[in-house]
Amino acid sequence: MIINQDREFMRQAIKMATKGVFSASPNPRVGCVIVKDSKVIGKGGHITAGKEHAEIIALKEAGLDAEGSSVYTTLEPCNTSGKTPPCTHSLINAKVSRVIVAMKDPNPNVNGGGISDLIKAGISVTYGVLEVEAINLNLGFIKRMKYGQPWVRAKVAMSMDGFIALLSGDSKWITRQQARKDGHKWRARSCMIMTGIGTLRKDNPQLNVRSVKTSRQPTKVLIDSKLELDINYSFFDSSQTIVFTSVHSNYDDNQKKQFKDKNIEILKISCNPKFPNHLDLRGVLKELAARGCNELHLEAGAKLSGSFMQENLIDECLIYVAPIFLGKGLPVFQVTESVKSLFDASKWAFSEVVKLGDDLRIILRPCGFDPLGFFHKDSN
Amino acid sequence: MIINQDREFMRQAIKMATKGVFSASPNPRVGCVIVKDSKVIGKGGHITAGKEHAEIIALKEAGLDAEGSSVYTTLEPCNTSGKTPPCTHSLINAKVSRVIVAMKDPNPNVNGGGISDLIKAGISVTYGVLEVEAINLNLGFIKRMKYGQPWVRAKVAMSMDGFIALLSGDSKWITRQQARKDGHKWRARSCMIMTGIGTLRKDNPQLNVRSVKTSRQPTKVLIDSKLELDINYSFFDSSQTIVFTSVHSNYDDNQKKQFKDKNIEILKISCNPKFPNHLDLRGVLKELAARGCNELHLEAGAKLSGSFMQENLIDECLIYVAPIFLGKGLPVFQVTESVKSLFDASKWAFSEVVKLGDDLRIILRPCGFDPLGFFHKDSN
Repeated sequence: MIINQDREFMRQAIKMATKGVFSASPNPRVGCVIVKDSKVIGKGGHITAGKEHAEIIALKEAGLDAEGSSVYTTLEPCNTSGKTPPCTHSLINAKVSRVIVAMKDPNPNVNGGGISDLIKAGISVTYGVLEVEAINLNLGFIKRMKYGQPWVRAKVAMSMDGFIALLSGDSKWITRQQARKDGHKWRARSCMIMTGIGTLRKDNPQLNVRSVKTSRQPTKVLIDSKLELDINYSFFDSSQTIVFTSVHSNYDDNQKKQFKDKNIEILKISCNPKFPNHLDLRGVLKELAARGCNELHLEAGAKLSGSFMQENLIDECLIYVAPIFLGKGLPVFQVTESVKSLFDASKWAFSEVVKLGDDLRIILRPCGFDPLGFFHKDSN
Repeated sequence: MIINQDREFMRQAIKMATKGVFSASPNPRVGCVIVKDSKVIGKGGHITAGKEHAEIIALKEAGLDAEGSSVYTTLEPCNTSGKTPPCTHSLINAKVSRVIVAMKDPNPNVNGGGISDLIKAGISVTYGVLEVEAINLNLGFIKRMKYGQPWVRAKVAMSMDGFIALLSGDSKWITRQQARKDGHKWRARSCMIMTGIGTLRKDNPQLNVRSVKTSRQPTKVLIDSKLELDINYSFFDSSQTIVFTSVHSNYDDNQKKQFKDKNIEILKISCNPKFPNHLDLRGVLKELAARGCNELHLEAGAKLSGSFMQENLIDECLIYVAPIFLGKGLPVFQVTESVKSLFDASKWAFSEVVKLGDDLRIILRPCGFDPLGFFHKDSN
C-alpha cells in the first residue's frame, strides 16, 4: 500500500535525482533519501557517471543509523558491478529494513534483479511510488535501454504562423531572450546535440550550452551526407563531434588529419532505401544509442527536422512560439510527401503549454503516448 | 476611494451585463445591481436593444426601497432619449444616494453627460470600479463609437505548423468538437460574420450560429469583389446578408430580384488604391460600423484574412491550434508583400492561452494593446 508519507519522501528523492539532470548521462538520473523515525537521515543524488550512486551517498550520510531505516530510491538499486560495486550489497550490509522503489531499472542486466536480491535478503520492498514521475525523468535512459535508440527531442522556435525564419533565412531572433535562455537548459540536459549541414552553412551556430551552468558540454552530431563541412565552422570549436556521412563520401589524408586535430569523428552510414538522398536516420540513432546517448537534442532546419518527422523518429517536440506573424517564410518541417487526408496527419498531444516572457513554450508528445506503457511494454 | 465591497457588487453587475453578450448589440452590454444596507435589492442586465436598460430593470425590482440606495452600473447611465427614456431621470426620481460607474459611455451623445447630471442632482458618483473588466466586455461598442469601425476578430483553426487546410483545400476537421463548439460562442457574440467568396466556393459553409443557444443570428457579410456568388450557397439560406462588391460589378434585373428574394443587399465599394485587386476594406468596416456592427467575426481563407492582416485591420486573433503537423498546406494569412526583416514582423501579444479538449485556444491582441488607453485615447 502506498501511503502519503511514502509519496512525500519519494518526492524528496526525485528532487535529489534532478541534481543529475545535466550530468548523470549515460547513467540514469537517480535520487535516494533514507528515513528513520520519520526523519531524513541521509540523501544523495547520482551526479556523474562513474562516481558514487545515489544510494551509496545517502548510506554514507546515514552511517550506522541506516540499520532499520527505510530507503527511498527513484530507481531500483543495481545488483551488478560496473564502475562501482552493487548497491544491493551495501543496502543489505547496512541492514536497512525497507526499500521503496519508484521504478525498475530498465537495464537488461538489472531489470528486477536488484529488487529480487533485496527481498531474498529479507528486506521489505514497496514498488511503484511516483513511478510516472521517475519515468518522466529518465525517458532517454529507458528509450536507449529498451528500444536501443535515444529519446529524440526536436527543438523549434517559430512564429505564430509556423515559420522558423524569413525566406531570406533570417531567424535572429524569432523568440525573445527568456525563451532562448530556456532553450539552453534543454541543450544542457541532452547527451548530444544534432544539426544538419544546412544550418551550419546558413547560421554558423556554436550549438553548445551557454546561459546555464553545466559541468559538461553535450557531444555534437552533424548530419552531412555529402561531407561538405568546413572545419572552421564554430560548431567544431569545442568538445567532440560526430559527423555522419554517406558511404559514398570520400576524404583524403590531409582532411583526415584535420578532422583528427579538430576531434571530429567521421562515420559512414548507408542511405535510406525509401529516400535515397537521405542517410538512414534510424541507423544513425542506433549508433548514437550504442555510444550512450539517452537524450538527443535535434536543433535543425526544416529539411533534417522534416525527415525525422516524416520517418516518425521524434519523441518530443519542444516548440517556442513567438506572437508574431511573418506571412511568408521557411516552414518548421519540410516534407517530401504531402499528407493525403487530415486523417493521415501526424498526431500529437499537448503535454505542456507555458508562457515564457512574451513567448509560449509548447511540449508535444505523440498522441496516445503513455509513460507507463512506454516503460513496461515488452519492446521485443 | 474604491473599496472591496464596491468591487464585489460591481462584479455582480458585470455578471448581469454578460447576459446580453449574445443579444444586446448594437447597444453595449450593461449590468446593474442596486444595494441597500449591504444587500442586493434589485438587479438587471440589458438583454436586447430597444428593450429596457439594465438600470430600469433593477430599479423596478428595488421599487420604493431604491431611495437612499447605491446603484452599481457597468456603464454610465444615459441622459438621452433613444428608444427608451433617459436612465438618469429614473435614478434621480428614485432618490438613490450613490451611483458607482465602471466606465463612461463612449457614445458621443452621452460621454460623461450622464454622470454630470447625476452629480448636479446631488447624487454621489464613484467612477472606475472594475473599469478594465467593463471595457473588455464592450471593446466592439467602444471601437464603433470612438473609432467608427467594428472590433475585428479573426478566427482561425490551424495545425501546429500553421496550416488551415491541406493543399487540396480539405479542412474538415483540423480541430476537434470542443474547439468547434467554442467557435460558435464567438460567432454568437458577434454582430456580423464575414467571409470571402473563396470560402463559399470551397466549403459552402452556413457560417451561422449552431451548438449554442442565441436569440438572434448575426448578419452575414460577404466580400465578393467580382460578384461571383451563387445564390444557392448555404450562406444565403437564412437571415440577412450584405455583399460588398467592386464598383465595376454589374448585375441585371433578374439577378436584382433574386438578391431581393434572398434578402441579399449588394453594396458597391471602391478598390484599395494600394492593392487594386482588393476592395477598400477600411471603407467596408466604416460601412458596417454605420450599420451598428460592434464586433465583426472574420472567418475566412488565407487571402481575405491575409488582406486584413496586411492592412492592420485585425484587433484580435482567435486561434484554435490542433496538435497535428501537416507538413504542407494552405497558410493562415496569405500576404502579397513579404516582411523584409524580423523587426518588421506583425507583432502581437498572447492575451489568453487555454486548452480546449485536445486543442489549444489562443487569443492574441496587438503588441502593446492596453484597454484603458484604447478607451480613453482621444480618437481625433
